[in-house]
Parts: sequence; structure tokens; C-alpha cells
Amino acid sequence: MIIVLKHGYTDNQIENFVKSLKSNYKVTVNKIITPNSVVLNLTGNTEELNPDKISKYEIVESITQEPNNFKKVSRNYKNSNTIIDLKSKHKVGNNNLTLIAGPCSVESLEQICSIANDVKNFGANCLRGGAFKPRTSPYNFQGLKKEGIELLIQAKNLTGLPIVSEITDIRYLDLFENVDIIQVGARNMQNFELLKELGKLDKPILLKRGMSNTIEELLMSAEYIISEGNSKIILCERGIRTFEPYTRNTLDISSIPILKRLSHLPVIVDPSHASGIPWLIEPLSMAAISCGADGIIVEVHNHPNSALSDGYQSITPYTFKHIANKLLKLKTFLNSNKP
Amino acid sequence: MIIVLKHGYTDNQIENFVKSLKSNYKVTVNKIITPNSVVLNLTGNTEELNPDKISKYEIVESITQEPNNFKKVSRNYKNSNTIIDLKSKHKVGNNNLTLIAGPCSVESLEQICSIANDVKNFGANCLRGGAFKPRTSPYNFQGLKKEGIELLIQAKNLTGLPIVSEITDIRYLDLFENVDIIQVGARNMQNFELLKELGKLDKPILLKRGMSNTIEELLMSAEYIISEGNSKIILCERGIRTFEPYTRNTLDISSIPILKRLSHLPVIVDPSHASGIPWLIEPLSMAAISCGADGIIVEVHNHPNSALSDGYQSITPYTFKHIANKLLKLKTFLNSNKP
Amino acid sequence: MIIVLKHGYTDNQIENFVKSLKSNYKVTVNKIITPNSVVLNLTGNTEELNPDKISKYEIVESITQEPNNFKKVSRNYKNSNTIIDLKSKHKVGNNNLTLIAGPCSVESLEQICSIANDVKNFGANCLRGGAFKPRTSPYNFQGLKKEGIELLIQAKNLTGLPIVSEITDIRYLDLFENVDIIQVGARNMQNFELLKELGKLDKPILLKRGMSNTIEELLMSAEYIISEGNSKIILCERGIRTFEPYTRNTLDISSIPILKRLSHLPVIVDPSHASGIPWLIEPLSMAAISCGADGIIVEVHNHPNSALSDGYQSITPYTFKHIANKLLKLKTFLNSNKP
Amino acid sequence: MIIVLKHGYTDNQIENFVKSLKSNYKVTVNKIITPNSVVLNLTGNTEELNPDKISKYEIVESITQEPNNFKKVSRNYKNSNTIIDLKSKHKVGNNNLTLIAGPCSVESLEQICSIANDVKNFGANCLRGGAFKPRTSPYNFQGLKKEGIELLIQAKNLTGLPIVSEITDIRYLDLFENVDIIQVGARNMQNFELLKELGKLDKPILLKRGMSNTIEELLMSAEYIISEGNSKIILCERGIRTFEPYTRNTLDISSIPILKRLSHLPVIVDPSHASGIPWLIEPLSMAAISCGADGIIVEVHNHPNSALSDGYQSITPYTFKHIANKLLKLKTFLNSNKP
Repeated sequence: MIIVLKHGYTDNQIENFVKSLKSNYKVTVNKIITPNSVVLNLTGNTEELNPDKISKYEIVESITQEPNNFKKVSRNYKNSNTIIDLKSKHKVGNNNLTLIAGPCSVESLEQICSIANDVKNFGANCLRGGAFKPRTSPYNFQGLKKEGIELLIQAKNLTGLPIVSEITDIRYLDLFENVDIIQVGARNMQNFELLKELGKLDKPILLKRGMSNTIEELLMSAEYIISEGNSKIILCERGIRTFEPYTRNTLDISSIPILKRLSHLPVIVDPSHASGIPWLIEPLSMAAISCGADGIIVEVHNHPNSALSDGYQSITPYTFKHIANKLLKLKTFLNSNKP
Repeated sequence: MIIVLKHGYTDNQIENFVKSLKSNYKVTVNKIITPNSVVLNLTGNTEELNPDKISKYEIVESITQEPNNFKKVSRNYKNSNTIIDLKSKHKVGNNNLTLIAGPCSVESLEQICSIANDVKNFGANCLRGGAFKPRTSPYNFQGLKKEGIELLIQAKNLTGLPIVSEITDIRYLDLFENVDIIQVGARNMQNFELLKELGKLDKPILLKRGMSNTIEELLMSAEYIISEGNSKIILCERGIRTFEPYTRNTLDISSIPILKRLSHLPVIVDPSHASGIPWLIEPLSMAAISCGADGIIVEVHNHPNSALSDGYQSITPYTFKHIANKLLKLKTFLNSNKP
Repeated sequence: MIIVLKHGYTDNQIENFVKSLKSNYKVTVNKIITPNSVVLNLTGNTEELNPDKISKYEIVESITQEPNNFKKVSRNYKNSNTIIDLKSKHKVGNNNLTLIAGPCSVESLEQICSIANDVKNFGANCLRGGAFKPRTSPYNFQGLKKEGIELLIQAKNLTGLPIVSEITDIRYLDLFENVDIIQVGARNMQNFELLKELGKLDKPILLKRGMSNTIEELLMSAEYIISEGNSKIILCERGIRTFEPYTRNTLDISSIPILKRLSHLPVIVDPSHASGIPWLIEPLSMAAISCGADGIIVEVHNHPNSALSDGYQSITPYTFKHIANKLLKLKTFLNSNKP
Repeated sequence: MIIVLKHGYTDNQIENFVKSLKSNYKVTVNKIITPNSVVLNLTGNTEELNPDKISKYEIVESITQEPNNFKKVSRNYKNSNTIIDLKSKHKVGNNNLTLIAGPCSVESLEQICSIANDVKNFGANCLRGGAFKPRTSPYNFQGLKKEGIELLIQAKNLTGLPIVSEITDIRYLDLFENVDIIQVGARNMQNFELLKELGKLDKPILLKRGMSNTIEELLMSAEYIISEGNSKIILCERGIRTFEPYTRNTLDISSIPILKRLSHLPVIVDPSHASGIPWLIEPLSMAAISCGADGIIVEVHNHPNSALSDGYQSITPYTFKHIANKLLKLKTFLNSNKP
């Protein structure tokens, strides 16, 4: 058994831990000091070593029998791609291209139905729309809330498109009964109490990466959901915070092939929030699909410049048509060139 | 009235917005294009311009009558320092040095009482202890929860120290009735639903800066609390995420004088989480107090190397005694040299 | 004339500047205070205002006649794509796919010739190889220097491939006479004295973005070269420093369409340094070409695990063949779908 | 011997390396796989293992006999603080407070002499002034160059203050004969050719941390200088690039105690560049000195709002007097409370 110790312990603390291991188990402990960590190599009667018990010591960074902290989301746990059935004609994952489109905020019945019709006709297979909006300022528009969800359901009934909307508090869960995919926003990616409750549902969850969370942390948050029983999880890369000021965030394109390699879950990309710039949505979507993303989620508004939120980064339905068309051709090309 | 437009709109979108302004109000609109933004200068019959209505357009970045989005937390709104009475002998703010100490997690009655006694004797005026622990992995120790709060209250009864503990879900609020300060952790800094509920209480809130949130966002989250009525807010800098790998996070020391200048709220620093390294706690605390922090919150454990969480960054009560002593002398020196 | 003032000046400093403007010119000055900056709107006899003179005041952030600091690299200055003739059969830019491949360091005649032959046969149109290696530690292998350049030239003579190699000091310039493209590495992106000297040459320069430099700063460094007369510049995105630890750097994919929009210069991507992980080179290259990159520069080694530098991120010639083949098909597809 | 392998190699590459070790030496190799790295534990006839030879393999991250790459700058190499004699009455290091002040750019004899006189009278023990200015834009003021150095020397002759000025290219070295401390700016921290040349001098070097360089990289750059023979190095923290937009950079205050612990070299702080905001210079300087910095370097200008560069972040001589006075009192207090 190999125990990697955490960075920052004193020699004394390490010695005490080694002593306690030796006194509790019949093992020989070899200490290896590397520039970044201290590694303990335990030999001898290691069968009776209980990883669960040892891992309770905070000094323990990891134990090699279980090198990663994510288990059920891992491709080691389940090798085949997870495919999520939206109970429409569309399934998320594998060779399918998932195009989720719609306004940042649901504003009115007319607005959401007009956009829903357009994006459906232009290739979308899912409608997005925010009803509960987590805004940085308490004085900004916070969404239509319950009414917003109701309008979104009307648009769903009209078009047949499955709908996705963000939940900001578990107390609102009842309102999401007819919402097909529940979104966890970037700011709630580590709201673990919320994740655990969503893990008890039998409903797809769209989990967005926090703007300063690592790839591993995203997988760990997915693990919170899957560990409660719900494996219908769509991961979403939406840009991270960096020093570069030109774009609102920096799209971490590498996260797509990495997530696809480490996990069996589908991965989509949100170029609208990643860039904050409408003319970047086409090239970033092309890049995302080319390196393995299962789809995109994009903000589309019929009147971007009078939108009540995020209008500046929205594209029109007509632009969406153009982009959807290009992405479908690209996906067909990529599928036909698979090994 | 000066309207600053958001970055990223097309010329067409901007023209449409200008037209709609002109058609709704009797104003002349001068457009100023700067490298970073487009600014509209409205002159004429501007009295009837309704900022609330205009700010609903998403293209609007800001309106000059209201240059900042934080109002009630601002020093422009209230010039004198907010002082928070902990109903013990201690008040947070002004010339007082607030020393909050205790374990990352409450583990047992013996543990918390032993630490509480020690830190009280060595100068602490508040006891910290986690009962609900937001851990990155679902498989890590998540705290003693309800039992943890109860043990903390016993330690409070024993020592007279006011207690601070983190809340992770508003559904647990009832358990915090006898907790003196409710902490909002870094991961929940933008859990706006939680903040709004805490804003309805008459109880001090310790609001930690998210690890990738800006200073302005921290003030906006405080605004969520204060806008609901609760102005008993203690801001806490605890390090931000950067590329530097040596420390767990990078303590943003500049945030202290900036927060003190922009806001009337007290500011404390958490050197334990900022650095993750025990031997950095003394120099970082010295730096924080020297540039205006009202106190520190620090992890102290009687047996750091067997702690159930974050033991590696904890200091012993004896080390705390040494640091508290140095900080008290420093604070006395600084107070005596004030203009 | 619109003058945007820099952030951080006191009201007093701004007033003094306004006074000096008024006393020197017959103008009316309107001060506009935005959340991010102070903007001065000058009206009246503005013809005699000398931007060169006014911009000498450090308080001045910019003057609207010249909103950007990059001029000759800008697409506003020259709308058509710059195409760089390598004097082989290959031209960089427009619809061409540029594939630059080769080892991190030139190690021996056998090594460089073997790799050169392979990558040429598998589709590369340029050979890379480091002779002067800027290594973080003074005790690491620093390259074969003069001998390395000579070996590279032998490989060029053998295969006909143009060669690219990094310069680390202008004093070595004479050695680069037969090098077709001189590379400026990330650490030297703001070595302005070096850039100015390279600007006096009539030879293509491959300018890598510094690992923490903004897109605008990259263009400004290119401006240093072009302002001296040399417009044969190839920009290269090679990843930026962020908090994400999985990859060596974070490939800023958005920079590609942004650079292509702001500038007429060709843009290539270095997926080897951006990721540091061999299995990411294929997906990142696909993403880069899909969103408009003119090519890639990639580390290829015949024996990656015994390479004297950066072997761990190198791919074998065989893997390069596979990737080159995929990229060529992709480029053909993209070219055939252009509007 | 423990060999830590680099991240990112394939199993195959690792196996090949192990095989080559086994075939070359009579050793047993135990492979330890940790979450972050692969560690090889070599036992047997390890005396004949040549670390220099093994470390040439790029797969090798480090070898335990030499866990760090910085040697001569390390406190393990030399335990006592390095003290740098400026050949004036002042020595940098130990209990001395070093106050370096002066304008960003030398502009005229009158300007530099006026400022030099003032800062000397108010407590400075060294004069700074830029003659070669590395500016982001080629169209900005680049300094008075040779004339600037000459004016600086006149100010030195007038006041007796030792002078510090930045070098941007080794070809200018002759001009710096009478400059007491040569500064290497943040953009040149990894200009290794320059560092090696400065390492051959017998003159103090002020080495600034690059804005996105790690603490370890700073020490490695210092190692480039010291490895050539020159140990008169003053390290300077000047802020790093992060996502926080309020300040120009983020002062990494933790770097001060870390550098002081890892190295014997003196450390100073540049609050002017770190913050870019004049009113932050006092609190940041207080923080820096409190946690162990040996001094500060600060921009002082007699007419900040007409300065030819960086005026907006400069303080007046009068403000410098106030800050110097506070820092001297603080240093006296800290010295008197040393263990």
C-alpha cells in the first residue's frame, strides 16, 4: 500500500503518523521524500490495512488502491459512454449532436414561444430558458421564477422540445417536475447539499463547471450526484477565470478531451458564457465539436438588444440557424472519419 | 445622465438602443467610443429619465447616478465603521483585535472543550468549529452536523466564548439558534438564496470571499444580506486561486485596505485557508493586521496530525499563544501610532 | 477628441490635467465619470490639439483618434490576410495548412535527420528544432547551440524542409543566417530590444505568446517587429498560466478567432507546450484548425523517452502521421464549406 | 535513490526508461504510482548511479539526492542572511530597512535632482530611476537611455545616494559602470542570457519576479546569476497576474516569508507596480515589512500627473516622507520584539 501524504506537514507530524501506523499494523514503513510530497511505502502484512480507516487521517493525501477520489463517474468504473435519453426523439451522447438553445431569461410567453419555434426549426433538440437567475447584484433582474417555469413548459408543449432550466435552491424542486433537465449553475457547482438532493432524482442533471473549479473538482461534484444514485449527468464546460481580459472567461478547450477520457459522462460546451461575445460562438462551437464535445448550449434571443439579461452575448435565431447548420455538417464529417 | 454600455454589442444593437432612447425621451444622445466601452451622454430633458427602467436593458452596463452596484455596504452610504457586538465582552471592528480560533471540524466534546479552553486562555475572543463541512469529495468526512453544533454550544457554555460555525443549507437554520456568528463559506459566497435568508436574521454573518471572486463580487454578496435588513456582516479574505503552486491559495493582501476603503464593514483574514501552511500563519497574520484587518480566523487543533479535516494546516494552541501575543503587541503599537 | 484617463488618479490630479488642457488649447472639456474610468470630451477648436503631445501625459489612457496601440498589425490597417512565403513550395496563411514538426532539442545528426525525413514524408512542411534552449534551471541541458543550428541546416539540406529555431539573444543572430524562420519564445515575448532587432530583418519571425501575456500584448509585441519594417510575422498561441493543474498550461482557444479578427497576420498553435500531454495533441490540433488556425507546431521525437528535453510531451513520427492525416482531411472539409 | 518521473508519460515510455536503468546499473527498481506522479525507488548497488547522467533523461522530474533545482541561493546551502553592502552607509538585509525611491523614468536633471534631494531628506537610502523603459507599446516613451543614466549619476553625485536602474539588453552594460545596483525587470526575469552575463559581475543585482512566474522560478533565475559567481542578489516581489481587476497586479504577500525561508537572499517589495494605486502603497508597505521584507522600492515623482510614465501610481515626496516615517517606526518596533 502506498500512502501519499499531504504537503505542508512538519517532520514531527509525519513521524507521529508513521509511529501510529506501525503500532496499529504489522507493517514496515518506508518513507520517500519527493520534492512535492512525502510518500509512505507500506510492506508486510498489508492485507489487514483498512483504507477507509487510514484515509480518515487528514495527513493522508491518497492511498494507491484508490488513487482518484471519483469512482462512479470514472471511465475505469464504467467504460462505455453514458447516453442520456431525453424522452424526446433525442439522446445525448455517443455520435449525436446535442444543440441546446434559448434565451438567458424567460421573459414572456410570446418571447419564449417565438424563440422555441425558431430554434426547433433551425436544428435545436432542446430548449433552454432561465427562470431563477443568480445575479451578482441583488438589484438586477432575478428572473420570473415560478411563472418563468410555467411559460417554459408552455413552450415545451407547443414545440415538443425538452426543456432545461437552472435551479438555485432545493426548496424550488417541486416546480421542476415537468422540466426535463435540471441545470446546476457555475456558482452552485460546489453547493453539495443541492447536489446530494439532485442525486436522489431520476432526471438528467446539467452540471456546469464553476468558473474557478478544476476539472477534478467538476468530476467530484458529479460524484456527489452519482453517489446518491442518479447517473444521468451532463457535464458542461463554460469557461474559467484567468487574467485574459478580452473574453468574459477563458474557454478551457482541453477540458473536453480530458473529461471524455476520465469519465463516461457526456460533455457539452457553453460558448456564450465562456466568451461573452456573439461572434465567438461559431468558432468556439466548431472547436468544441471537433475535439469531442457532445453538443453545445447557446443563448439565443429574438431581440438581443432588449433582452432582460445577457442580451449582449446572445445570438439571433437566424445566426443560430447558420451555426447549427455548420455544426451538423462538421459532426457528419467527424462521424464518417472515425476509426 | 451617462450610460455606459456593455462590451461586445454590435454597432447595430447599439444604434437600436439609441433610437429607442430617443423615441421614448426628449433627449439628445452623444455617443462616445472608448477602447473599452461605448458611453452615451444624454442631455436635454433628462429629469424624466427613469434609471430603473433604463437599467433593465441588458446593453446597459451602468448609469452614472449610480456608478456602483453596491449601495448599503458602501462607505459612501455610511461613513463610520460598523462595529459588531458579539454580546460577550468583545466587539468586532474599530480598534479591537478579533482573534477567532478553533478546529476545522468539531470532533468530540473533549476535543472542542480542550481547544476552547486553551484558545480562550491564550487570547481568543471567539471560538470557531465546523459541524457541516463542504468537502470536495463525497467520500470525505462531512462533519458531525447537528451533534457538532451541540458540542460547540457546550464549549461555549463552558468558556463563555461566542461561537462561529458554517451553514451549508438554509434548511439547517434552526440548528444555529445559539450560534453567535453564522459563517458563509467560500463555496457559498454566491449562493444568493442562502444570503437572502440570512439577510432576514438579526445575527452576525461571517462572509468569506469565494476563491475566485472579485472584491466587488464579495461586496455585492454582502449587499444581498444587507439589502434584506441585516447589516451585521464581517467580511473575510481567505485567499484566491492563482497559478502559484507553493501556497494552497494566494492571500490577496490588497483586498484588506480596499475593502476598508470601499465599505464600512469589518474585515478579517483567514491565513490558514489562504496558505495551507502552518508556518505562514504568523507572518501572514502580522501582515494582515498591519494593513488594517480587524482580526484573524485561524485553525487551531490540539492534535493537528490526527485531525479529521485540515489538520495539516492547523497550529497547536501553544503556537496560537505565541502568535496571539505578537498580534496583540502589534495592534497596540499600531493603535498608538494612529494619526 | 475623447481622452480616456487612466484608473487610479485622484480627483486633484484629474483637475490639474483638465486645467492644463484648458490653458493650452481653446477647448471646452466635459468630464464623464464612468465606473471604470474618467473620460474627457473635448470640443471647440480641437484641430490644433496634438495627440502626440497630449499622449505624453501619463494620466492619458488613450485618445480616440487612435483607440488601439497596435497599428500596422491591425486588420484595420491592412484588410487582406498576410501570406508568408517560406521559399519552399509552402506558403503560410490563407487556405494552407502549415504543419511544423520536429524535436524540442536538436541532439545529433542522426536524430534530426531521422525525424526530418519522417515528418516530411508524413506531411510536415517545416522542421522545428531547438539549439538554444531557455531552461528554468541553469543546471538543465541548454541545447547544442551553434552545433545544433549546423545540424538543423544539414537536415534542411537533406529534406528540403524550411527550418525554424529559437533565438535567445541578439548576439547569436549571425548563426541564424540559414534558418528560415526565427522563433521568439514565450519568455522573450516582451524582450523588446530583441524584437526591434528582428524587425530590421527580411525574414519570417514566429512570435510565441508569453504564458501570461494578454492577446493585446502579443499584438503589441508584433507591432514592435513590424514598426521596424518586418511584416513577416507568424503569431503562435501556446497556452497561458491558469489555476488548472491537469494541463501544463491552458490553451486559450478563443485567442485564435480573436487574433484573426484583430490582425491580418497568420496564427498557429502549439498544442505540445499548451498541454504537455501527448494524447491531447490530436484533439487540440483538431480544435485549433476548426476555429481558424493556419497551422500547428508540434514536438515530434523518434525516441520520446530518451529525449534530452521535453520528451514526455513529444509524439512519435507515427503518431504525427496519423494526426497530420486527420488535419489535412479536416482542412479540406473546412475549405470546401467556406462561404 | 528516488527518481520522480514527470507527469504525462505513457506506461510504455516509463517501462522503457525502467528497462534502460536496469540494463545499465545493477539495481532493483520499484515503481510507485501516486495520483500525481510515478516514483521509482532504486535499491541495490546505487553507489555507481550517476545523478548527472540520469537527470539528462527528460522523463526525470527529480532525483532525491538533490530535491530542489536551486542550490546556491538556498538556505540549506548558506544559512546566514546575505547582506549586501551598497558602499554608502547602507547595507541591505538583516535588521536594516531599505527604502528605495525615485521616479519611474528619469526625465530631466532638474526632475531627478529635485526628487533625489527630497527622498534622501525623507529617509530613502537608495535612488531609483528608469533610463531604459520596456514599454508594452513601441509608440510609448522608451526612456532617455544613455542620457538618463548620466542624469542619474549626477543625482547620485549630488546626494550621495546609491542608484538603481534597469538594464534591458546586455549590450548596454558599459553604461551601467557607475550604477550601484542593476535592476532586471519583470519581463526579463527569464532572459537567461542576460542573467548569466550579470552573474559575472561584482555588483548587486535587483531581480524582479515576473508577473506570472512562480516563487520557485524566481529562485531559479537567481540561481542563474549566482551560479556564475555573483551572489549579490536582491529579490523583489512586485505582484502577479490574477483575475482580480481592482489592482494592476496582486501582491503575493506570502512570497516574502517563503523566499526568506527558502533562501538567504534579501527580499524587497514594490508596492507601486503591485497595486498601481497610490493610496495602497502605505498599507501594502506596512504589510510587507511586518512579515519580513527587507525593504521597499517605490515610485516617487515631484509632479505625478505630468510624469512621462507611470505617474498615476507615483506618490509625491511628501507622501513618501509620511510613509517612510511610519515604516521606520514599525521596523524599530519589530526589531525590538524579535526573539
